Order: sequence, then C-alpha cells, then structure tokens
Amino acid sequence: MAVYTPVSDDELQTFLADYDIGEVTSFAGIAEGVENSNFLVRTTRSTYILTLYEKRVKSDDLPFFVGLMEHLADKGLSCPRPVPSRDGATLRTLNGRPAAVVTFLEGMWHRRIQPAYCRSLGAAMAEMHVAGADFPMTRANDLSVAGWRPLLEACGMQSNQIYHGLYNALNQELGFLERVWPTGLPTGTIHADLFPDNVFFLGGEVSGIIDFYFACTDALAYDLAICLNAWCFEPDGSFNVTKARQLVTGYQTVRTLSAAEREAMPILARGSALRFLLTRLYDWLNHPEGAFVKPKDPMEYHQKLRFHQSASGSAAYGL
Amino acid sequence: MAVYTPVSDDELQTFLADYDIGEVTSFAGIAEGVENSNFLVRTTRSTYILTLYEKRVKSDDLPFFVGLMEHLADKGLSCPRPVPSRDGATLRTLNGRPAAVVTFLEGMWHRRIQPAYCRSLGAAMAEMHVAGADFPMTRANDLSVAGWRPLLEACGMQSNQIYHGLYNALNQELGFLERVWPTGLPTGTIHADLFPDNVFFLGGEVSGIIDFYFACTDALAYDLAICLNAWCFEPDGSFNVTKARQLVTGYQTVRTLSAAEREAMPILARGSALRFLLTRLYDWLNHPEGAFVKPKDPMEYHQKLRFHQSASGSAAYGL
Repeated sequence: MAVYTPVSDDELQTFLADYDIGEVTSFAGIAEGVENSNFLVRTTRSTYILTLYEKRVKSDDLPFFVGLMEHLADKGLSCPRPVPSRDGATLRTLNGRPAAVVTFLEGMWHRRIQPAYCRSLGAAMAEMHVAGADFPMTRANDLSVAGWRPLLEACGMQSNQIYHGLYNALNQELGFLERVWPTGLPTGTIHADLFPDNVFFLGGEVSGIIDFYFACTDALAYDLAICLNAWCFEPDGSFNVTKARQLVTGYQTVRTLSAAEREAMPILARGSALRFLLTRLYDWLNHPEGAFVKPKDPMEYHQKLRFHQSASGSAAYGL
Repeated sequence: MAVYTPVSDDELQTFLADYDIGEVTSFAGIAEGVENSNFLVRTTRSTYILTLYEKRVKSDDLPFFVGLMEHLADKGLSCPRPVPSRDGATLRTLNGRPAAVVTFLEGMWHRRIQPAYCRSLGAAMAEMHVAGADFPMTRANDLSVAGWRPLLEACGMQSNQIYHGLYNALNQELGFLERVWPTGLPTGTIHADLFPDNVFFLGGEVSGIIDFYFACTDALAYDLAICLNAWCFEPDGSFNVTKARQLVTGYQTVRTLSAAEREAMPILARGSALRFLLTRLYDWLNHPEGAFVKPKDPMEYHQKLRFHQSASGSAAYGL
C-alpha cells in the first residue's frame, strides 16, 4: 500500500491544467501497488489514474512501458491507456517524479483463483502477445537467467539465515539453469509480472491487465511459466494441474505453442520460480527495519521450485 | 494513509451481497484518513465508500455517528449517507470490524486556504448546525474542558521534552480555562473536527463534509472556534483576520451568533487550541517507534494558543 510522494490539490490542478480531460471533481491516493504512488482522479469527463514513478522504476525504461501501454491500447487490448497532455507528452514530471496519467480500468483482481479465471487469463495473455508482436521498442529482461547470479551473490551466505543449505541449493539450481536455459524460442513483448493483482476481472472474464513495469522482450512462453507459478498453486502449496491446463488451453485458443515452447515449459517454470525466489530473498534480507511494506515470503517460491524440479515433463503442466 | 484491515474480493462480494447497490465493478483501498480503513467501491449503480472502523473509534459511539450522517443527509446536507443493507442495518460487521457503506461525495479538500473558502465553510457549518438541531441523539464531548486535565496528566512531565516549562504553562492555561469556560451557550450537534481535509470543495464552494467521528453535543460556537484554529492561521503561524471574518460572516448568513457566543469566542478559541495541543502532545509522546503515521507537531498549536492568549477580545476574530 503506497503513496510515497504526496500531491496537494494545488499541485494536481497545476499539473492537470495541461491536459484536456475535464475538471477534477475528486482526488484520492490509492493504497495499492508497492512500487509507485497512485492516485484516483475523477473529472467531469471520466476517471483516471495518476502515477508518480518512484525510484525503483528506472526512468530510462519509462518510454518503453508507456509506449507499450499505448501500443496495446491502440490494438484494442484492455490496459491503461496513457493520456497525452496538450503538447502530446505522455510522460511528464510532478513533484520531482516522472508522472503519467492513464485511463482507469473497471474490474477487480481475485485473491482466490477459480480454474476458469486461468482460462480467461491464458487467452488474454496470448492476445497481449499477439498485439505486442509489432511493438517496435525492445527492453532486455534484466531479471532473466543472466541476472540471477548477481542476485544470488548479493544474497550470499546470508541466504542460509532462511534455512541451512539454501545458498548451496540455489547455487546448484542456478548452475543447472544456466546450462540448459532454452534459446531460440519465439520472443516478443512479455508482461513478466502477471500476478493476480495485475489482472482485473468482471463476471469471471479478464477485463484488463495493468502494471507493465516489468514488461520486456523475452520468450513468450516465459510469461506462461510465470503464471504457472503465480496462478496454479493452491494456498497449501500443492500444484493444481487443472488450473495449469486451463491456462495453457486458454492461451492456445489465441496462439498455438510450438513444440519447442511446450518442451521448454518445465525449465521455464523452474527458472521463473527461481527468479521470484531470488528477488523475494533479496528483499527479505535487505528490507529496512520497521518498514511498512512487509516483504513476501521467499520460501513460497522455494516450495514451487521443488515441485518443478520433480515434475515429469510438460505433461505435468497440462501440455 | 491507511488500510489497516485488508478486505479481499471474496469478502467484499459476500458482504455486499446483502446490499441493493448493484454489481461491484471496482474496489480499491484509499490512502486517506488515519483512524479507519476506507475503500472506494464502484458498482454498476454508483460509487460508495466502505469504512471499517478501527479500534480508535468506540463502537458504542457508532450509532450516534451513523445516525447523525443519516439525519443530516435527510435534511439535504451534503455529507456521506449511510446505505442500509437489505435488512435495514446501516452498521454491520466485516473482518471483525464494525463496517458501514456510505455514498461517495465529489469534491477535493484544499491544502492552501483562500479567504473565500472560509466564507463557504462558515455557511456550510451553520447549515449543519441548523440541520442537526432536531437530531434526537446526544453524545458528550469527551475532548472538551473536563477531558483536558486527564490528558495533561497522561503527558505529565514528559511534556517538558518538547520544551522546558511546557507542562507548567499548560497546567496554568488549563486552570484558567477550567475557571472561565463558558456555560449556557446555545448547544447542539457539532462536528468538532472540521479540519480542511474533512471539507470538500468544488468550484470554490463547499461540496461536502465528511468524517463525523468526533461529532458530539456541545456549544455550537465551539465548532467555529475549532475552525478559527484550523483554517485561519497562515503556514508561517500568523493569524489571518480576513479569513476569520469570512468564516464568521459566512456562518452568520445562515445563523446569527448571540452576544454571549461572540463574547465567548476568545476563550473558546483558547480552549480549542489547548484541546488539539494536548491530543497532539499525547500522540507525540506515545507514538510507537517506527510507526508509519508521523504524529503532528504539537508546537503548531502552542503557537496558536499564544496568539489567542494575547488577543484583544472578539474583535480580533472579525466579530
């Protein structure tokens, strides 16, 4: 929950005077999102989200993120559409932070995932991949296999505070993934953070996708692997193959996976589990004393990783 | 900024199934308010605020607060209107907290106060006093003169951490106020916390009053005295008599102050300054280490108190 940078009514009015979006009628900080400061802005015309990008988002990457949302919205995808100011800029500055106004999306994210949600999610993800195919900008995925060793080394032997032997286990897994990580899979623009809180639903169907601030250019199937981890495990840690099957089936109603993509899925799932394990581990070991945002438990992803390590090929994922 | 008690989509849906307010289309925690957890709920019909009352609000007082909002809304005042569930209840329970759904009010609160805002505020306050005159419930003001000594004693000699001699100065002021505190002034239902963040404006005019969780039965003029403190001082600590004059003039366009009320204003202003000084002092001395909500500076109200101590009668307030 987060408003890191306050914005006063006067600051807002001055900032929005450069937009053709009507008169502001209401303005409130939103207690969602852990990376940026978000405000809900109602005007005489519509409802918008004002985002101030905090330091965890690199400002060099913002044109990619904002450009991608614009591209996807132009293609008819339901995602926040950046609203240009009168001079055409979609990225501006407010209170020393890069800032953007985007359209508000109706919908709610679900904490308890039904299998049918996974089917709708799969189809929406594939539509996003298809719509993003001709997006001209690229951004390397700095949280893919090449980025994991620096993360592990930054955690170092402190990792064993979580449990004895964790560092060695992760080091071994990482060595394995570095050797077998698939290359040559179909690539494109992926979301790379499609967790349930970034997917809105209305009446059981996906109504919108938000939070493109990890989006990058990478193997399309890796987005699916992330969702196998984020959507298909039960709260007790067990893997729900029905949800996985719904996810990949929904995906393939829009875009068929190649044989290489299907074969790579177990490795991609291991890699994506390790990626979230490592970032959570790092945050766990490095969060400031008394911080308001409690870091997420890295062990949840260790359990997921162990499932993938023992999975018997892509059939385990409903493929 | 605050969502103390999280509410999941499932919990929300189950709770709202008992209301006739349409289907939920969007749901977000709001980073406003320091006492309760607030959520913005959009439905196919309208927009609402869901409030979960946290422990600082006594549940015994909730029927008074919710009943008052209902009464004032019935009289045409622009304040949140409690929405009853299908069985007629406006106060229910969600996640172990008392909870209410109220209508959403358009408008924004202003950080930088223009004199004209004070005029509109004065008129809106008087309308609230008139509309509340026949509200049948009563609630003692436990933060009026009888409540100040226990607060001061709870702060005790620790007060001198703020500055040497503060305890004695406050003790002397309190003794004086206990002797001269006016009785017999016209009483009724007052808001008792009409700070700028509780008053919404649209186009320079008050569009709504919120946050009735300090409302009580007390001298009507005391509400004005609170606003003299909360609205009529400049950021540099100086008193702006133009704003004060606008405030009392606006008020008297709706309800004329009696001679006794006008005469009592300097004492009421001193008392209200002491009241906020004491609660801020207590919070300052007792806030938990590393707490997210930074307590407000008690010395701001010490400076205001000193102004009132040296004020030359009610003329100093534009009366």
